[in-house]
Parts: sequence; structure tokens; C-alpha cells
Amino acid sequence: MEDLTAAVIGRLDTTPDPRLREIMQALVRHLHAFTREVGLTDDEWLAGVKFLTATGQMCDDKRQEFILLSDTLGLSMLVDEINHDAGGAATESTVLGPFYVAGAPLRDYGESIALADDAPRAVVSGVVRDPDGKPIPGALLDIWQTASNGRYDVQDPDQPPFNLRGRFHARDDGSYRFVTVRPMCYSIPDDGPVGGLLRATDRHPWRAAHIHAIVSADGYRPVTTHIFDADSDYLDSDAVFGVKESLIRPFVRHDDPAGAARLGVPAPYFTVDHDFVLAPAARRR
Amino acid sequence: MEDLTAAVIGRLDTTPDPRLREIMQALVRHLHAFTREVGLTDDEWLAGVKFLTATGQMCDDKRQEFILLSDTLGLSMLVDEINHDAGGAATESTVLGPFYVAGAPLRDYGESIALADDAPRAVVSGVVRDPDGKPIPGALLDIWQTASNGRYDVQDPDQPPFNLRGRFHARDDGSYRFVTVRPMCYSIPDDGPVGGLLRATDRHPWRAAHIHAIVSADGYRPVTTHIFDADSDYLDSDAVFGVKESLIRPFVRHDDPAGAARLGVPAPYFTVDHDFVLAPAARRR
Repeated sequence: MEDLTAAVIGRLDTTPDPRLREIMQALVRHLHAFTREVGLTDDEWLAGVKFLTATGQMCDDKRQEFILLSDTLGLSMLVDEINHDAGGAATESTVLGPFYVAGAPLRDYGESIALADDAPRAVVSGVVRDPDGKPIPGALLDIWQTASNGRYDVQDPDQPPFNLRGRFHARDDGSYRFVTVRPMCYSIPDDGPVGGLLRATDRHPWRAAHIHAIVSADGYRPVTTHIFDADSDYLDSDAVFGVKESLIRPFVRHDDPAGAARLGVPAPYFTVDHDFVLAPAARRR
Repeated sequence: MEDLTAAVIGRLDTTPDPRLREIMQALVRHLHAFTREVGLTDDEWLAGVKFLTATGQMCDDKRQEFILLSDTLGLSMLVDEINHDAGGAATESTVLGPFYVAGAPLRDYGESIALADDAPRAVVSGVVRDPDGKPIPGALLDIWQTASNGRYDVQDPDQPPFNLRGRFHARDDGSYRFVTVRPMCYSIPDDGPVGGLLRATDRHPWRAAHIHAIVSADGYRPVTTHIFDADSDYLDSDAVFGVKESLIRPFVRHDDPAGAARLGVPAPYFTVDHDFVLAPAARRR
């Protein structure tokens, strides 16, 4: 049986591209080791074939069930950590997710991205800086999140395009501010093979509530990250393993009309304070 | 990063079915180990997602691209060895392949399965016996193979149904005999994602020439196996790793009209001598 694994790996020896060779030989070694370790039966093998087939056939231009599978097996977060762990004081990264849309409107400091949502406002602000605390003027923040119904604009025909999406530049002192609503927990799509696997393994499909951000600036490593709501459910059991302690922030409630007026929002409202720290690009691997 | 893997495995702890739990936890451990070992990049991860998606979308009621992928990675043969290695003197097993059709005509000793094929005849014969040499009367042999054009009946509208397929019972002395044509090498379907992967890894899609057999009898472990033609190309590089030394047999050419007449075939013809040895069912795991 060991001979078989060696034969398959040997057959890949002449793969012209050395990186593809490395990946395929490692894949075969790990795939065979897994299969041997569990003593996979014929029926289990066939169940695996059928699961992967159904996963592929669930995919279309709006749904990527294999990415969902990768997410729920922690693979997406692992690839993220391998490739985007800037280390040190830099803001930690987390999954991009399937709901990013490029080209969100560029908005001014303090503007709202809640084009159509009556929920209480959340004012998110902070500074974009380097690990030494030096502000990064002009840093670009690309922000997106669910509406207060737990859905993204692209999932919800009742929301206008780019609702709860916007791009902001940090000011000269590195500060940024935008107005939004509190994000909601939501279920990843669970009506396909991945949902079936979650149920069979006694897992829920919920993500902890979060605001997405991609923060970038010339000369720095960009970071794809979230701000998690400290009051959210599922912080300990996020379906895609995206939560990192350092990304959890309180949404602080305020009822004072004066503070509201100063920020240009109705009371009650919430404030969230979160700095983004970018590592210099020189540290990129 | 190790924490992430532990978290995913921990999340599967409450899987109700203990076997599913074992398989999923091992899968996550090996999948993460592979990903970490090669340091999978974002682009490579996405290429993998796209490959798996295309593989699923290539599947329909006639084409199973994930089984083809399993075959070409040696996984199908590994699962076969895990589950069907009877050990000892029993005939070795190999892949079932995608071309088996149940319900082939039951034919008499010495009959031909070549309903429409003008190639020289091959007369295949031997004994079905147990590991001690005792004949197994009435053992059932389910036989199928390519026509001399390298195609199975189900791939070729010019062949009648069940061309080169037949079932035979061993006689009271365990002997069997059937008439066929020499099987041909053929390419596994290589117009899909798996074909692309074979080309990228400098591999050919050819299978060594073989006759398929499933041999079964009450009280014995059935065996799914091949008889390989010793003169075939690709015996050392079968695309699905199906060749085992013990299954290779010479197709011996004969030109004598008397021998041909005795077997009821035209000269020249070939003979193949191959015994099938079944392990007692008591040895089934």
C-alpha cells in the first residue's frame, strides 16, 4: 500500500513546474495518509465523491459553495494567516468573505453609508497608523457590512446598490470616521451541501456581527479585516472561524442629543473606536 | 496557527455520528497540515477552488470527473486495497472503473461475447478455485472489456448493447472459458479538468489493455479485478495505477487450424490462461 503512494508521487516527478510538483506531491501524500488513517470504506469514498460533486454543482456566478466549504473547515482562515499575518502590532487580518464589491462610493470624513436603513446610527472612528503610532494620512478604508436586517445589499433587492458600502480616506492626522448602523449576525448560505455537513456535524451556520474593512496605503501592507461587535452572539463559534480577540470592539450606546447633534446623527446612537495599524510593505514576505 | 486547527477540530467534537466525527476531524488535520506544509498562497487556494468547481460541473449522468480525479491520484486503488485486499493467494483486486453495466447476458461455457468485432479471437480460460486449489463450481464471472477499436459498447453507438460483456458460470470442476477479442489500450476522458491536470503534470491518460472481471461465489469474498495483456503498452504507467504484476497474462498467438476448429474460432487466434482464486468469506473483515 505504501508502494502505491510512492508510485503516485513518483509519477509526478516530471511535472515541469516545480511549485505544482511540490503541491501535487504533498497533496497525494496527505490525501493517502488521511485515507489510510481512517480506513476509508467504499461507501464513504463514494459519499465523498457525491458530496464534492454536489458542492461543485451548487456553484454559479452568485454562489461559491467550495469557498463556503473552505471557510467552514477553517481553511480560508489558515490561508489568510499563512499569507497575511503581518505580525507585531499590525491589525490582524480575517476572511474577505463572498460579499465584497469593488468600486464602492468614495465618501467624505464622517459621511453615512446607511443609504436606506432606519436603525440607530453607529459612528465608527479611529486612526490609521503604523506600528510606531505614526499616522498614515490618506490611507484608504474600504468598508462594507450587512443592513440591520442581516443582509448585504447584493442579497436584498429592497436595498439600493452600495447600501452600507463606502470608501474613506484618512485625514492628515490619520483619523477616519463614518456613520453606519450596527451590523447583524447572519447565517452563511446553508441550503446546499455545506449546510448539510454543518447539520450532520451539529454546527450552526451563524457569523458573529461585524463590519468589513480593507485598509491600504502606499508603502504599507494592506489588511483585510473585520470589526466585531463585542455584544454579538457567536463570537466563540463563528461559522467560518473568523473572530480574533483583537478585532472585537464595544458598540457604546449614547442617548445625549447634544453628542448626537455634534456627530450629525439622531439619538440614541452608538460609537465604536477602532484604530487600524498597517505594517510597512518592507515586511511583506 | 496551530490554535486555528485545534479550534476547527474542537468544533467537530459534538458530531453525533462517531464515524463522521473521526473522518471529519482527521480530514481537517490532514488538510491543514498539507496547506501549512506547502504554504499555500491566496492564488493557489483560489486555483484549487476553481479546479474543484470545474470538476464538479463536468459531472453528469454519464461522466464522473471526481471519480476520474480519484483514479488518477491513486486514491481509488488505495480505497480498493484498504477494503478488498483478501491477502494470501487470493486473486488481487483492482479498480471497477466507470464502464461496468449490470445485467450482462448469461452465456454458456466457451461462448463468445464478441457480438460485433472482426478482430482475431482470444480464448480466455482457467479455473475458479479457493486458496487451497479446490475448485469452486458455479462461481459467477462477470466480464467486460473494450472492442478492438478501444471503446466500450456504452461509448460507441456502432456497437450493439452488451457487445463484449457476458456472465459465465464455472463448471463443476471450476473451469470457465469464453471467447472474446484482444482488449485495447484506451485513454481515460481527458477533455475536462482532470485531463488538464494530467497535462500540467506531464502525464498521459492511457490505461494498459485489460479485460474486466468480477468473480463471485456463495461463501467466498467476491473480487473485482482485471486480466492485463502482457504485450500492452502502459503496464508501467497505467493512468489510474490499476496494474498489479500478478494480473498480467500473455495472450499467446496460435495459427493452427485444428486448434482453432477445436475451440470454434477462426485462425489465427490467441489463448489466455488465468485462474481466479477466491478467499473464503470468513476472512472478510
